[in-house]
Order: sequence, then C-alpha cells, then structure tokens
Amino acid sequence: MDKDKIKVGITQGDINGVGYEVIFKTFSDPTMLDMCVPVIYGSPKVATYHRKAMDLQANFSIVNSASEAMHNKLNIVNCSDDETKVEFSKPSAEAGKAAFDSLEKALEEYRQGLIDVLVTAPINKATIQSENFQFPGHTEYIQERVGEGNKALMILMKDDFRVALVTGHVPVKDIASTLTKELIEEKLRIFNNALKVDFNIDCPRIAVLALNPHAGDNGLLGTEEKEIIIPAMEEMNAQGIRCFGPFAADGFMGSDQITHFDGVLAMYHDQGLAPFKALAMDEGVNYTAGLPIVRTSPDHGTAYDIAGKGIASESSFRHAVYVALDVYRNRLFDEEIHANPLRKQYYEKRDDSDKLKLDTIDDEEL
Amino acid sequence: MDKDKIKVGITQGDINGVGYEVIFKTFSDPTMLDMCVPVIYGSPKVATYHRKAMDLQANFSIVNSASEAMHNKLNIVNCSDDETKVEFSKPSAEAGKAAFDSLEKALEEYRQGLIDVLVTAPINKATIQSENFQFPGHTEYIQERVGEGNKALMILMKDDFRVALVTGHVPVKDIASTLTKELIEEKLRIFNNALKVDFNIDCPRIAVLALNPHAGDNGLLGTEEKEIIIPAMEEMNAQGIRCFGPFAADGFMGSDQITHFDGVLAMYHDQGLAPFKALAMDEGVNYTAGLPIVRTSPDHGTAYDIAGKGIASESSFRHAVYVALDVYRNRLFDEEIHANPLRKQYYEKRDDSDKLKLDTIDDEEL
Repeated sequence: MDKDKIKVGITQGDINGVGYEVIFKTFSDPTMLDMCVPVIYGSPKVATYHRKAMDLQANFSIVNSASEAMHNKLNIVNCSDDETKVEFSKPSAEAGKAAFDSLEKALEEYRQGLIDVLVTAPINKATIQSENFQFPGHTEYIQERVGEGNKALMILMKDDFRVALVTGHVPVKDIASTLTKELIEEKLRIFNNALKVDFNIDCPRIAVLALNPHAGDNGLLGTEEKEIIIPAMEEMNAQGIRCFGPFAADGFMGSDQITHFDGVLAMYHDQGLAPFKALAMDEGVNYTAGLPIVRTSPDHGTAYDIAGKGIASESSFRHAVYVALDVYRNRLFDEEIHANPLRKQYYEKRDDSDKLKLDTIDDEEL
Repeated sequence: MDKDKIKVGITQGDINGVGYEVIFKTFSDPTMLDMCVPVIYGSPKVATYHRKAMDLQANFSIVNSASEAMHNKLNIVNCSDDETKVEFSKPSAEAGKAAFDSLEKALEEYRQGLIDVLVTAPINKATIQSENFQFPGHTEYIQERVGEGNKALMILMKDDFRVALVTGHVPVKDIASTLTKELIEEKLRIFNNALKVDFNIDCPRIAVLALNPHAGDNGLLGTEEKEIIIPAMEEMNAQGIRCFGPFAADGFMGSDQITHFDGVLAMYHDQGLAPFKALAMDEGVNYTAGLPIVRTSPDHGTAYDIAGKGIASESSFRHAVYVALDVYRNRLFDEEIHANPLRKQYYEKRDDSDKLKLDTIDDEEL
C-alpha cells in the first residue's frame, strides 16, 4: 500500500519569500504525510533558518535524491551552495540562483522518474533570470524542458471552478491583435482534453467569455466576437468540443452560471484572473495543463511584504498539493479505463437464438 | 416632520422586464414608505397587469403629478398611452416608447422641483432608441438633459466598496488609445468630489488600477502606467486628491486592500465590473455621480429570462433607493456645514491677555 504513495517534488522557490513557510505549515499536518511522499529540492541550511526565524513545526530528513525519500517524513534534497544567505523580503541574485538550482534539480529527477508530480513554490521572476533562464516564468520554462513539444495551458482553479486564458502576459493594447481563431481553437482543445483526462469529466462544458464589453453588443462595441470567437467556437463544436457563449465577461462570474460549466475560457489575463481571484483568493491553485508532467503551484507570489513574519496562509499551497495528487490519480484512472477496451462483440443477426458470438475474432488479433 | 420626506421619482423602465416586480416588492415593506414618498412614472394599467400576473402585494394611488403625491402611499403618475400592452420577455417598440415617456416625464417633474431624487428601473437599450433618444443608455441621456454642463461618472457601489471607470463602452482594441492623462485626471476629480460631497468622506482615498497585467511589470507588459497613469496621479496628488497605485488589477479586488480605500478607479469596463459583480452581485447599485441630479439604478438589466415569473430579487433596487436617499441627505448636510463658515477670528499676539478679539471685523463685511 505504502509503495503506491505518490512522490511529490517540491521546489523551494525564492528563499527570501514565504515558500518554506507555506511548505512547512502544509506538512506540519501528519495526514499530509499519509497521502504522499514529499521531497523538497532546496537547502537544509536555508530550511533550518526559516524554521528558526518563525518558530515553525518542521522535522525533515536530508536525502541525496528522491530515490532515497522516506515515507512519513518531509524529505529534503540539498541542491544549493552552503553559503546561500536568507534576507527576508529582499530580491537578490543569490536567491534567484537558489530558486533556479532547485527547479533544475527537480526537473532532472522528474526526467529520471524519481518523482511523480511537481509543486512549485513562488519565485521572483526578475532575480531568477540568468543565462540559463530567460523565460517569463515557471510555466514557459517547464514547457521548454519537459514539455516534449506540447503546449502548456495555465488553469486557475478552485474546486470545480476552473479558468483558463487565451492570451496571457500581453499588454492591453495588443490583446485584440493577438487574438486569432486558431489560438482560441488551440486553447479550447487543450482545455477540453485536460478536463477529460486530468479531471475525469466525460463530456466537459466550457463557457467562453467575450472579448468586448457586453459581448460586443451585436457589433456596436467591437467585432471580434462575430469575426473570431464565434467562428472558432462553431468549428470546435463541430469537432465535438462543447463550448458555450460568448458571454459578457462582467456579469458572468458573479452569476450562478459558472456552476453550469466545467471550465471558463477568458480572452485575456485580467478578464479571467480579476474575478477569479475576487472569488477564490487564498484557495486558488495554478495548474499547468497540456504537458506530460503534472505541475501545480499556489496562486500567490513571493509575498515579500509578509515574508519571515509567520503569518502567511498555507491554504493555497496545500490545495496545490491536493490538485497535483488528484490529477495524477485521474490520469492513471483514465489510462486504465482506456487500456484494454472490450473486444468488439458481434451478434449474428440471422441467428434467432440471439446469442453473443464470443468466438468472433477481431481483425487486429489475426 | 413628514413634510421633510424625500420624494423619490421612479421610472417604470422596460414594461416587459422585471421593473414593476422589483418596484412593488421593494415598497411592499411599509418601512420603505416611512422613509420616503415614492412616485412611479408609469401606467396604472400596466402596473395592474404586473400585479395580477405575479400576484404581488401592491397598493398604489393614481396621481396627476408628484405635487399631489401622498405620504405613506405608493404613488403612480400616468404617462403612457392606455393601449400599451405588456408582453413579458419581448423586446418591443411599444415598451421602448413607454420607457422613454416615463423617463421624460420624470425629468420634466424633476426640473420643476417636484421630485428630489431619481431611481430608474432597467430599460432595453435597443428598443428605447428613437428620434428623441439616441444615446447608449440612461446616464448619457440624463447628463444631456439635466446635467447643466457637468460630466457624469458612473459609480458601481455596495456599501463602502465603490468602483468607477475611466473608459466605459469601448471595444478592447481601442481602450489603450482612448486613455489619456487628462481623462484620468477628469475622472479622479469627479470621483474625489463625489466621495466628499455625496458620501461625506472628509479626505477620500482612491485606489487606481493599472491598465496592463501585473501593472505593466515595469514596462515589460505595457508602458501606459509610466507614461499616462502615474503622471496623472502625481498631478492629482499635487492638487490634494489622494490617489494610490497603480495596482495590478487581477489580485486587487480579491485582497483585503479594498477595505483601505473609499473608491477604486478602474481603467476599463470589464476590469472594474467583472470583479465588482463577482463580489457584489444582487446588492450592487449604480450611482451616477457628477451631476446636480441624484440618480441611482439597480445593477441588473431587464432580466427577460425571468420576467413575469415573480422570482426576481428586489435587493439591488431597494439598495438603489437607499443610496439615493443617503446621497440626497449627505448633499444637504454638506451644504449646511459649508453654508455659514465661522468668521475669521484674530488673536492680538502682542496682547498678553490672550483674549479673542471678537470685535475684529472681516474685510468682507466692510
């Protein structure tokens, strides 16, 4: 039984932020250790510093790699220089390097099959940049390193409320020109597949938000709905992806309409995230769909304003671990139910006995 | 005492929507009639039809004008053709005309000083259009007719949570080019003044949202923050209007930061309204600031999908009445406290007795 426990790789993130605090708080609950085997990629020295500074309950075992990880322990793999200093709330190149080394080691061990899923603590997107890391954030880097050519789709989620974006870190003036029929179709395909495989929803229903206020008000307030969004949705519906809308974005998330859908596709960053965070702050989880690796993260940042104070909430991080475990199990389940489809069985129509001809042989087996 | 009751003019809005239902439900509570004298501009025949169709509790008195309005009654002024037919949930030219006639009559009596404030029921913005009404909505029309040259600013509010917009019904592709330093300054001035006079906040604090994701991320995701928004805020701060930010829009409304501010200025429609409605659905009120007239409305539309079913919630409409009464009283209070400022009083510094020289005469009185 214990052998089946899922191994959760955890990056330390920015060591001057709230990363260790939320990790330690999450695993101070012994039931979390019953559910999985956590492996932090970090530094025992830094971890000890955080533990002392905030007087946190945290016992951890130092191991050389996830392959040695012990059950019912919080394991830590050292992947940092011993001289690394913690300076709470300060962006520093040292912390950037420590965050990068942690991520690199975690991805290396993932490729070796030593961990099953990855949960990342928040990084400082400025200080992590280096010759080896020139990406807007975790998602793009992970897609590049272990994506195997697949495209990632960020899903912000809380329970059954899931929001994905067509365009992400794009200035507002470029949103409309970035949006294309093909891009919307691509995102709908990935979203639909993730809902099916990762969340085991047989026939997912996706709500699509409009780009313009009042869904363009029949062309008066913008034409992208008619020219891009609706054609993309028609094409996808024809291919069996059930999408609805486009809905005016302002009232949608406040209404109970969201309960009728398994996912909401927003056209741009603030359109999706502002109402999502208004509703799901503190428990939101960021799930990177579309890739072979299962990776989640909390929906907060390094939170320098409260780093080292011991007042950060671990709720979002804990939910990130839950989601990673759920998705991993769901994928196994999906694989299992599709692994050995029942052989085609033929009735002999002319035979009045109406017996099943189990002796019929599939073409494939010949 | 009774003579001081505030007269609330109420337009019937679209007669095929939920207007009468929310009006009747609001005033079925007798305490509402203690607080004000409501005058509906509508049609007794249409009102009766709605009352019967939904078996609503509603007693009203027909009067010729608000000047005859009776206390402790729901008054109705007939301003429609007697042949007007109700067809629930249908957009019709007839209903559009009835909505227009109601609004016209209400504004006429407002100009005559017969009503103190105006609460408008939702209209269908398509069917109300005619030779006499070519506006995107109520706000623009009211600004034109009784604005006396002032510019209106729509504030969406729930209790102390108030959101105003710099740009309104603008397609997303045009938002960035519509935004100017002058426009932001104009909105900040109106907003600040409304918070002071209409809500009696001595020294209001306004949070300003950024245009781009992550507040432009130091120029990486857009330059409008640096080039337009921050200069406008600096200019306004120099003039004594306290504004803060610009804040990244995605996390702002979900955090407890909103409790530190008296108002939030969003850059565009969905940025402000999507998270506002997510948080304040059902109790949100639309207040038209900046004009001499006090006008509010519920934050929902005609709600054709549930019209005539008797299931509409009157909560937003009732709050719209409350806000109108509050703002009217606050304005009177503001006028009063600024009406007779204390005379300047001079101490004779050389005089050791330290007595107040009440015999000093102000220049103005000479």
